[in-house]
Amino acid sequence: MHSQSHQQHSGATPQQHRERVRELLAGLLAQGATEELPLSKALGRGLATDIMAPVDLPPFANSQMDGFAVSSRDIDDGGTELRVSAAIPAGLAPAPLEPGMAAPIMTGAMMPDGADAVVPVERAEPAVFPEPGSNSSVRLPKTVAGTFVRPAGSDIRAGQLALRAGTFLGPGQLGLLAALGLDSAVVYRQLTVLLITTGDEVVEPGRKLAAGQIYDANAALLGAAMRQAGLRVIHPGIVPDKPGQLQELLLEHQASVDLIVSSGGVSKGAYEVVRQALAGQPVSFGHVSMQPGGPQGIGTCHGIPFFGFPGNPVSSLVSFEMFLRPVLSDLFGAPQPRPVTRARLAEGLSSPAGKHQVRRGTVAPDGTVRLEGGESSHLVHALALSNALVHVPLGTASLAAGEEVEVWML
Amino acid sequence: MHSQSHQQHSGATPQQHRERVRELLAGLLAQGATEELPLSKALGRGLATDIMAPVDLPPFANSQMDGFAVSSRDIDDGGTELRVSAAIPAGLAPAPLEPGMAAPIMTGAMMPDGADAVVPVERAEPAVFPEPGSNSSVRLPKTVAGTFVRPAGSDIRAGQLALRAGTFLGPGQLGLLAALGLDSAVVYRQLTVLLITTGDEVVEPGRKLAAGQIYDANAALLGAAMRQAGLRVIHPGIVPDKPGQLQELLLEHQASVDLIVSSGGVSKGAYEVVRQALAGQPVSFGHVSMQPGGPQGIGTCHGIPFFGFPGNPVSSLVSFEMFLRPVLSDLFGAPQPRPVTRARLAEGLSSPAGKHQVRRGTVAPDGTVRLEGGESSHLVHALALSNALVHVPLGTASLAAGEEVEVWML
Repeated sequence: MHSQSHQQHSGATPQQHRERVRELLAGLLAQGATEELPLSKALGRGLATDIMAPVDLPPFANSQMDGFAVSSRDIDDGGTELRVSAAIPAGLAPAPLEPGMAAPIMTGAMMPDGADAVVPVERAEPAVFPEPGSNSSVRLPKTVAGTFVRPAGSDIRAGQLALRAGTFLGPGQLGLLAALGLDSAVVYRQLTVLLITTGDEVVEPGRKLAAGQIYDANAALLGAAMRQAGLRVIHPGIVPDKPGQLQELLLEHQASVDLIVSSGGVSKGAYEVVRQALAGQPVSFGHVSMQPGGPQGIGTCHGIPFFGFPGNPVSSLVSFEMFLRPVLSDLFGAPQPRPVTRARLAEGLSSPAGKHQVRRGTVAPDGTVRLEGGESSHLVHALALSNALVHVPLGTASLAAGEEVEVWML
Repeated sequence: MHSQSHQQHSGATPQQHRERVRELLAGLLAQGATEELPLSKALGRGLATDIMAPVDLPPFANSQMDGFAVSSRDIDDGGTELRVSAAIPAGLAPAPLEPGMAAPIMTGAMMPDGADAVVPVERAEPAVFPEPGSNSSVRLPKTVAGTFVRPAGSDIRAGQLALRAGTFLGPGQLGLLAALGLDSAVVYRQLTVLLITTGDEVVEPGRKLAAGQIYDANAALLGAAMRQAGLRVIHPGIVPDKPGQLQELLLEHQASVDLIVSSGGVSKGAYEVVRQALAGQPVSFGHVSMQPGGPQGIGTCHGIPFFGFPGNPVSSLVSFEMFLRPVLSDLFGAPQPRPVTRARLAEGLSSPAGKHQVRRGTVAPDGTVRLEGGESSHLVHALALSNALVHVPLGTASLAAGEEVEVWML
């Protein structure tokens, strides 16, 4: 049953509730299961160990340009004609540069001993590389030691911290590990969530809808949000408003899941299946001072962290984004934290001062954010048009167009 | 070979180059392969058809609160005592409300005929729901028609455009499709990319590095970026600087890939394996007025769209993010477009006025962006610390701290 109490308890703030979520999930971290994966399988996982650079990056001083490696002392203020030595091939340690010589060198090739600068080929006279084997010379302008040279270790030095435990492994991080020569990473194991959607009025998409019934949006919405966050999702279908049936389901899955999330049935209405089914478990049902997503259940069920989200789709997604997703990112390094920044309101808004309001909106490239739909938690079409959550903190009753708000990019 | 010319051709702007990429990939769109997937498999794909709402959302007028459904005309200005009828169960069409009665109703339950408003239970006297079957009455305050009622179709009406073809299917969009009763979606098929990394000096991570050699960061970096973007990636290992070997590889894979991306070997250096291997194909190698990522190859190889990125890791990732990823998003609805917004520079910067500079940075929740590392394209550690690309447009030579820049959130 999708039910939401109008009563305003002096409940927890969103920050306080998130802290309780963190305490519950920290137990999973203490259990500490990790696995070693090849880099090609580690995308989207959280790094479980600090990584110290095993080598310098770059591993050796190399040229930043196609040009001539020289000793800067060999060139006078007015420029100097130097004999051209053999070109420096990539991938090999070059012979030392002899005094008075200039060595053709390609971008990324190793600087020879005796050279301290690179003159780009287009500043040479003639501005071309001579044919290999030709006994030629080139006139080069004055240059300063270090010019167009990438020193060894200029990106990171061997022994420095490359990535911290708890870092999300995206393309840039995996690229760095590969650049350091690492072909695997120790990551936190994937967590499995039991996703329960409830309600006698709720029907599987694809079936026929009778009067008074609605389709289950939450299995698709929360299921996708959880998969996107790297969780393995078990969703055993819609649970009707029968507490005994929900209790059986919880018993059946308790051995195979790391956490449990339900939607619906947590409020103060007459038929609240989740409250009733969890009555014998250490789960508290209360109100977070947040709109939408106020009614929240939190605790453990047979020892497994349990989170009871409200049943309206927008409320359930906001609950996931406000509480579960950021705590997973913090504790396990995955999913990637939502980009958080600020945007200017394209229009004014009002908000209950006693609640942290989370609106949905579209952030535009000009740095403004337009609200999508009103504050009501049933507006799933408006949610689907949004690319951000817009935060109106506790204590704020209204904001004018042009004022800055915190936005979380979805 | 990782090589980069210093010569500044009056090349294409990044926008012009992106348009060429789009023209090449639009051919794949014309081939038009789509597939129908259940919603649980459609996360991260691009919708291939417009979706018109088959039903109203919500499908029927329902209560926004736990309270009493009433006819607002039955309540006088000073409040009125009404007899309490049977509670309205969720999921069923309720009996019509009789005049002078108030029906207990839960959030989301269907409004009965004859009712036009809901009075929240906590505003009733007494402020509780009576026991079922008890013959009781309740005093309710004056209310206005429509109060705490969600009208049918107030989110979206049947027949309206729900989602446009080309929409990325994330949690919100899948939630909307489910709410509309749809259990599948027609999406564009997954594209397969042949990823080629090149260079005699480049070594697989995990092996031993000799003097002058570097590890292949690009296979991990670009491979992850491509997988994150929903592409299937074939990476047959590092190709040495032997054009004949690369030509054989291209022939071998031509029947099984949709596009080809190479890194390295596209510049004006002496050993440019990609340029040499593609010499007989309609591929042009030129310079885009962008830093990093200037040298670019573009065309077709055996009729397959071909993109030759430069070999430095940062250059190759910037090439992917500037050209390939946004065009894939535009044409195929996936991956999700990068969130684009503006941030204030935490520090000043300089940029070559003749180039569009792409720096890496960290956007903070206060709306500022700090640059990570310098402009040099070998700084993969700095890239791994970044959460955004920072754009300095053509024609801009310097920006001061506090000035706003466009940022793309990674």
